[in-house]
Amino acid sequence: MAAYTAPVDDILHALRSAAGLDALIADGTVTTDLDTMRAVIEEAGKFGAEVLEPLNWSGDREGSKLVDGVVHTPKGWKEAYQAFAAGGWSSLPCAEEHGGQALPQMVAMAAAEIWNATNMGFGLCPLLTNGAIDAIEAHGTEEQTRLYLTKMVSGEWTGTMNLTEPQAGSDLGHLRAKAEKQADGTYKITGTKIFITYGDHEMTDNIVHLVLARLPDAPPGTRGISLFIVPKYMVKADGSLGSRNDVICAGVEHKLGIHASPTCVMKFGEKGGAIGYLLGEENRGLNVMFIMMNAARLAVGIQGVAVADRATQRAIAYASDRRQGRTASVKAGEMGPIIEHADIRRTLMTMKSLTQAARAICLVTAKEGDLARLAKDPAVRAAAANRAALLTPIAKAFSTDIGCEVASMGVQIHGGMGFVEETGAAQHYRDARILPIYEGTNGIQAIDLVTRKLPLEGGKVMDAFIGDLWKTCEEVRASNRPEFGRMAERLTDAVTALADASRYMGEQLAKNPDNAMAGATPYLRIFGLAAGGVYLARGALASVREATDDKTHVALARFFAENLATAAPGLKETVVGGADSTFGLALTA
Amino acid sequence: MAAYTAPVDDILHALRSAAGLDALIADGTVTTDLDTMRAVIEEAGKFGAEVLEPLNWSGDREGSKLVDGVVHTPKGWKEAYQAFAAGGWSSLPCAEEHGGQALPQMVAMAAAEIWNATNMGFGLCPLLTNGAIDAIEAHGTEEQTRLYLTKMVSGEWTGTMNLTEPQAGSDLGHLRAKAEKQADGTYKITGTKIFITYGDHEMTDNIVHLVLARLPDAPPGTRGISLFIVPKYMVKADGSLGSRNDVICAGVEHKLGIHASPTCVMKFGEKGGAIGYLLGEENRGLNVMFIMMNAARLAVGIQGVAVADRATQRAIAYASDRRQGRTASVKAGEMGPIIEHADIRRTLMTMKSLTQAARAICLVTAKEGDLARLAKDPAVRAAAANRAALLTPIAKAFSTDIGCEVASMGVQIHGGMGFVEETGAAQHYRDARILPIYEGTNGIQAIDLVTRKLPLEGGKVMDAFIGDLWKTCEEVRASNRPEFGRMAERLTDAVTALADASRYMGEQLAKNPDNAMAGATPYLRIFGLAAGGVYLARGALASVREATDDKTHVALARFFAENLATAAPGLKETVVGGADSTFGLALTA
Repeated sequence: MAAYTAPVDDILHALRSAAGLDALIADGTVTTDLDTMRAVIEEAGKFGAEVLEPLNWSGDREGSKLVDGVVHTPKGWKEAYQAFAAGGWSSLPCAEEHGGQALPQMVAMAAAEIWNATNMGFGLCPLLTNGAIDAIEAHGTEEQTRLYLTKMVSGEWTGTMNLTEPQAGSDLGHLRAKAEKQADGTYKITGTKIFITYGDHEMTDNIVHLVLARLPDAPPGTRGISLFIVPKYMVKADGSLGSRNDVICAGVEHKLGIHASPTCVMKFGEKGGAIGYLLGEENRGLNVMFIMMNAARLAVGIQGVAVADRATQRAIAYASDRRQGRTASVKAGEMGPIIEHADIRRTLMTMKSLTQAARAICLVTAKEGDLARLAKDPAVRAAAANRAALLTPIAKAFSTDIGCEVASMGVQIHGGMGFVEETGAAQHYRDARILPIYEGTNGIQAIDLVTRKLPLEGGKVMDAFIGDLWKTCEEVRASNRPEFGRMAERLTDAVTALADASRYMGEQLAKNPDNAMAGATPYLRIFGLAAGGVYLARGALASVREATDDKTHVALARFFAENLATAAPGLKETVVGGADSTFGLALTA
Repeated sequence: MAAYTAPVDDILHALRSAAGLDALIADGTVTTDLDTMRAVIEEAGKFGAEVLEPLNWSGDREGSKLVDGVVHTPKGWKEAYQAFAAGGWSSLPCAEEHGGQALPQMVAMAAAEIWNATNMGFGLCPLLTNGAIDAIEAHGTEEQTRLYLTKMVSGEWTGTMNLTEPQAGSDLGHLRAKAEKQADGTYKITGTKIFITYGDHEMTDNIVHLVLARLPDAPPGTRGISLFIVPKYMVKADGSLGSRNDVICAGVEHKLGIHASPTCVMKFGEKGGAIGYLLGEENRGLNVMFIMMNAARLAVGIQGVAVADRATQRAIAYASDRRQGRTASVKAGEMGPIIEHADIRRTLMTMKSLTQAARAICLVTAKEGDLARLAKDPAVRAAAANRAALLTPIAKAFSTDIGCEVASMGVQIHGGMGFVEETGAAQHYRDARILPIYEGTNGIQAIDLVTRKLPLEGGKVMDAFIGDLWKTCEEVRASNRPEFGRMAERLTDAVTALADASRYMGEQLAKNPDNAMAGATPYLRIFGLAAGGVYLARGALASVREATDDKTHVALARFFAENLATAAPGLKETVVGGADSTFGLALTA
């Protein structure tokens, strides 16, 4: 199998050109310098390549299994997790006062890409733990911080998110898990949760479950949901572990992919009630959970980038090696490497440029999140928070859609060998397929974008964003570089499509929201193509400005604009003209 | 799991409206009447639903396995195959003189859709056997016909296609298997073949392998390949079976999908040489093999339709049943079926209309194949043969691409349950992934389309085809029906895109063939969108003409035109403006 190379240069280039990192370092908003960032990402790359990658295939074959009530993770998993914690990788973005390294989200997301590229089944464990960390950091009491947060930051314990129930998936308002307040201020939690990632394992001494449940007198729907900390083992006041709490893993799903990651059915309170501690306020649990979910959505977007990058690396390696057919580089009667065939090149360029566009979108989203925390000016913080909110559904949905598409192209490049599991391409195709589903399906991301994000500040957040895209289009046009080809024209078409479709969405939200919902998914795709194309163009402009010998960024930006962003105007026609016929038929089973 | 309903009405509607079946029956070209066709397809639907569908999931779980040199197919497989043969299903399109039923390919393909929708792992066995039947029918001697063909037509024996070797996949010119002529006129075959579907099994008493090999004095490349009949068990002159031939299955691949279908490594001549019989002429084997491959390419396209239809049926059933979120049909505080949500509707309409468009393309291709055999006028036969040749790469590649896309949407509709194997949606996603790869990758189909099919008759075959598409656009426009929405405008845009891109392809083939190759894949997609959109429009026009109450065909045609055919103009920009940047980067591993 092809070795993994962490895309350190590509990540730093995206941070600098698309996310404007240099200016943030220069003005002191970001206090980590470029050399430190590079060093951290390089070290993450080594850890991924040396520790996680070798377990990826064996972990998939072996899978996690429930045996006599205990979840067994695959061989090597526990050691890898302990090395991960010992290396300080569980705490990159956490506050120093909790034992973290206080690095920007941008760096944490770059490292997360590496964990998930080398071993997505493993990478999910810190992904969920980080979500739980964020929630406790934001809403935990001093005692909760001391007892739980510090152990999760250090990597001694992992965390989970217990949201879904069989009847309450996308629609959390209908969840039924119960919480009853006890005389001592704790709560007794009962109920069944499904699809709980790393809901049980023996890699660490304890697991901190965050659980959504409903108080007896809670109002119906989403306004009656509270959030609880439910440890697997009780934690005494001195931090030592007590007895087992009343929570068990009752089953592990047999899944299409990520076999190593245990997806658990969790039963709370089979023996009378699991002991839980309220996190935040009663009936305000969903607000806390949204903190975890927003961070997790970006992290899932990064998983899409990760799988896409790994699949692309594998495909380029195979296509460079595999010989079939005559190409210009070989003598008559011999076969050339398939990478020299035009159709294979198109596929690989598509894979590579989609991956880099999605990565830029995710890293810009991380940057806005950093800015929303770190900027000195409250107005800058507020604007950044709004832009992060706007971009989160694109980061999640566009990146995971292209994760699946690129993984599928990766199988195709390998021909018949791609369909044989041992090659490794098929695992990416299987693993990637969960990404458009969990942490809010991509359809829900599209609806969130249209119904909640476009209306932010009366539409001004979106207007300002489009204004920035226009500026880049104008810069590309003004640069007048022959090697840019038709980049300016194609990006302008794509941003025009985004602007027109956005205007339509605004009108329909007021008049006929069903039409807006009907167009939400193709609209999100236009957004991803326009933003991704512009970010790659910023990368090309930066390359030209710095007069580097590396033609990669110009080539990828131009390819994306001339070959992929070309889809945007047609998608705009679909959005503005396709809603009526979406409702034109009574579909019956 | 959702029950399977054979799409009998949809198939007949496509045959009549898109393929013009009524006229062919009326003028006597096709001698099977509509009622007979319906009866055959309905019976096939019963067989699929009652015999094949119940084995689909269990067969996938169990898989085919090589144990002590013998391939074991899953439980129930042998009985199902024998019922299949006993029901006469192996011989639908075969000549009566060989024991077949002489039904049109159109009907055989409709039945093949059903086998593959209910159980693709099973459906592959007759698919390959039919390819072998076609080759022996066309090129076999009287003795070969008597000894082998009749047993394959009756379903007593199955057939295989032994083409691929490790170093010779897409590029068959480099195959190395050897054939040495013996004094008795037979040949000794030695070599290793890989990816041989149903290369071994014990469902039937014998297997007829068709094997490509090279004579000692053969010219290099594709002009030095001969084709041989190599039976698993020798066949005596009286038709009885003799000793085992020198051919074994040395391994069964561990694959992403179609686990029940054994994909074999075959070793010929490990004990001195398998005995083979020349089929056709020496060094002309590839010409014979192309007969099999062309039929197989259409049949693989039908597999794409089949998986897409099954995935769509499953998704509609789930979406009708699963309740999440508020919809107009339910009271506040309750949840409605997700099929009522606009974004889910868009996905289901996309699945259904893509499936029907691909089915129409495949059935029109089958019709042209029938016409090429059955028409009385030699000019009509020749024109039909050319049109079948033109459409075959679209039938194969467009249908299998959408097979994968629709299967992926099917997983998405199920949410988290879609990622759980037991639901069944994931199996379609895994199974479908082989379709764009085997029988010539879809990239090779696109190159075949551009470099061999567009130039047919100096481009006149394509010109005439586009002329027919224009006629339908004009009919839609002239019908002036409000329920058609913007169908005429959108189809006209799509056909314009196809015409413009075709003109560009013609120019580039002469000037710069690499540019034509670079655009081949998006070009093929435009072709599929334009042709598929027009065929659905013919279905809509027929519905309106017949004044039926069924609004399905109008709704699907309009949705396809307004929501999916809208991609064609953007793809045209990619084809005509994207080639330069495809070559803009030295991709390195």
